[in-house]
Amino acid sequence: MILSPGATIGILGAGQLGRMLAIAALKVGLRAHIFAPEAEAPAYDAAAARTVAAFENEEALARFAEAVDVATYEFENVPVKTVEFLAERVPVRPGARALALTQDRLTEKKFLRDLGMKTAAFVGVEDAGALARAVAELGRPAILKTRRFGYDGKGQSLIREGSNVAAVHRALGSAPMILESFVAFEREASVVAARSLEGEIVAFDLSENEHEKHILARTRAPARVSAETELEARRIASTVLEALDYVGVLAVELFVTRDRQGREGLVVNEIAPRVHNSAHWTLEGAQTSQFEQHMRAIAGWPLGAPTRRGRAEMHNLIGEDAAEWRDILAQPDLCLHLYGKLEIRPDRKMGHVTRIFPESPASE
Amino acid sequence: MILSPGATIGILGAGQLGRMLAIAALKVGLRAHIFAPEAEAPAYDAAAARTVAAFENEEALARFAEAVDVATYEFENVPVKTVEFLAERVPVRPGARALALTQDRLTEKKFLRDLGMKTAAFVGVEDAGALARAVAELGRPAILKTRRFGYDGKGQSLIREGSNVAAVHRALGSAPMILESFVAFEREASVVAARSLEGEIVAFDLSENEHEKHILARTRAPARVSAETELEARRIASTVLEALDYVGVLAVELFVTRDRQGREGLVVNEIAPRVHNSAHWTLEGAQTSQFEQHMRAIAGWPLGAPTRRGRAEMHNLIGEDAAEWRDILAQPDLCLHLYGKLEIRPDRKMGHVTRIFPESPASE
Repeated sequence: MILSPGATIGILGAGQLGRMLAIAALKVGLRAHIFAPEAEAPAYDAAAARTVAAFENEEALARFAEAVDVATYEFENVPVKTVEFLAERVPVRPGARALALTQDRLTEKKFLRDLGMKTAAFVGVEDAGALARAVAELGRPAILKTRRFGYDGKGQSLIREGSNVAAVHRALGSAPMILESFVAFEREASVVAARSLEGEIVAFDLSENEHEKHILARTRAPARVSAETELEARRIASTVLEALDYVGVLAVELFVTRDRQGREGLVVNEIAPRVHNSAHWTLEGAQTSQFEQHMRAIAGWPLGAPTRRGRAEMHNLIGEDAAEWRDILAQPDLCLHLYGKLEIRPDRKMGHVTRIFPESPASE
Repeated sequence: MILSPGATIGILGAGQLGRMLAIAALKVGLRAHIFAPEAEAPAYDAAAARTVAAFENEEALARFAEAVDVATYEFENVPVKTVEFLAERVPVRPGARALALTQDRLTEKKFLRDLGMKTAAFVGVEDAGALARAVAELGRPAILKTRRFGYDGKGQSLIREGSNVAAVHRALGSAPMILESFVAFEREASVVAARSLEGEIVAFDLSENEHEKHILARTRAPARVSAETELEARRIASTVLEALDYVGVLAVELFVTRDRQGREGLVVNEIAPRVHNSAHWTLEGAQTSQFEQHMRAIAGWPLGAPTRRGRAEMHNLIGEDAAEWRDILAQPDLCLHLYGKLEIRPDRKMGHVTRIFPESPASE
């Protein structure tokens, strides 16, 4: 189904990604209707309508499906059953499959491996005994992660030389886990790309990312990688988008590695079936933002040009960083985004700041 | 009063300017509360809250004043009494004076003349007899305008050689009018500038405007004028902003003239005490958009840099133009904005399209 201006986009989730998606909807004459359980959250202020209800509330979901023309989600921990329930009533883009896949780190890694992609070595871990065998197989350091509900470093732990494996396992709880070998990367990157309803694929220039305490701290675009690596990243994104028959924006997180011969390579870390923090720079730095791109894709519209407008740097405002808002506003080359979160909490993404450095058109 | 992120901006009026102001508020972590009489209008979808009530409804206005931290207006035909009522309860930026002044073309022209600015020759016209004398004084062609409630060419009529003056007068009704001599301009331009609470003034580069049927059709920035003319336009804007002790964004519409010696000059046409269609290009084309600039100013925040990011062209989508939305989306260098107006009507501003042509940093 192809939408017309004036149509309503249903968005599951009410965080800052939902807020920026709703703003992008407004720009192109669409309406946003947010569905989320929280009474207060960033996206509501940007939306024409809201439903505050649990993701399991089928009565509320049925009414929501009636009220929207297409539905999407802004974070990957929406229950798959919620999306399946909606998908019987209204198009959901991207669909339940991408969601289910990325909710389980083990399924996701297998999917990537089956597509022929290079990932960290990994083993599924059902209990403490299996973990001991897995550590013996993969060696140390290795990372133990819960298969489900991880983000920003939550639900994972590094197993080093000397770590008490059983204790690490207990600390993460009894949920099914995955052990991954540690990738000695040179830098982290991500490719954010969109696939339209007609199957057209458009990628933004590769982003280079720095994390602090497992949370994205800074992104620069373009990433400092070779042209071959850039092409390889785009090929990876295209392969994933096509394998999932995906409609919308998706991010692939990558490790950039260098082998003993000095050759650059890519290891796929994980997929996010949504707009992504590492492409916030596209709001000022690209002809089309990732948020508008997602709206175009799920509306059945032509994708926009991803053309970069300069060299971009983005840094997140985490926790107390946001208290610097006035100093940031006073700096003429900084572009401030705040998400409307009233309470500053440690590790909470409060906003972000972008700086675009003009490049000569000839040099692009 | 200086606002903090999370504060609420009250906006009188719910048109596309209110919509884009509300979107700008969202970007920097502010909330928008729209007050307007229409049940359906473009700005509501972008606002956290709305009050649908007549501008004369003092009970609703008092509640609105309680709910917002600062108030502003998005069009100049809000009743002055409404703003005066609010101003006793909450800061209104810009205030009632700029509004009252620009609601009456005769008062506005006198204000500009008293500031030493060059305007078209003008005479106030109270009745048909006064009009006959005014036409004799100013000559033909001349433009007869109602003093109040004019926009997009409404409430005005050209008096040419051979026009039946009495008939023109009757057609415009019996309201007080102003007769203005016709300015033989080379082109039309506008300067859009902001003044902060602390008195800092920042202007965007001059816009060059083309009207069709009295409605803005196209804008390009920078305007093709001499550096002296550009400076003179900025001086005019600064003088007006300071004379009004203005806080917020204001537009001055100008005629660019050329005398018999070939010298370029400026004639001030009128003032709009608000964000202005001729600076919509700043959304993509400037470091800070006019909408964010207005938010910064009325929040008591530092103004943003007006730096242009390239050569900008904007054209309005008027009436049936909006039916071309899909073709526009498919063109990679066009940036589409739609205002969420569901019904296409002739002469209705449905959206606009911007194109930015990169310039080499060295050439700026």
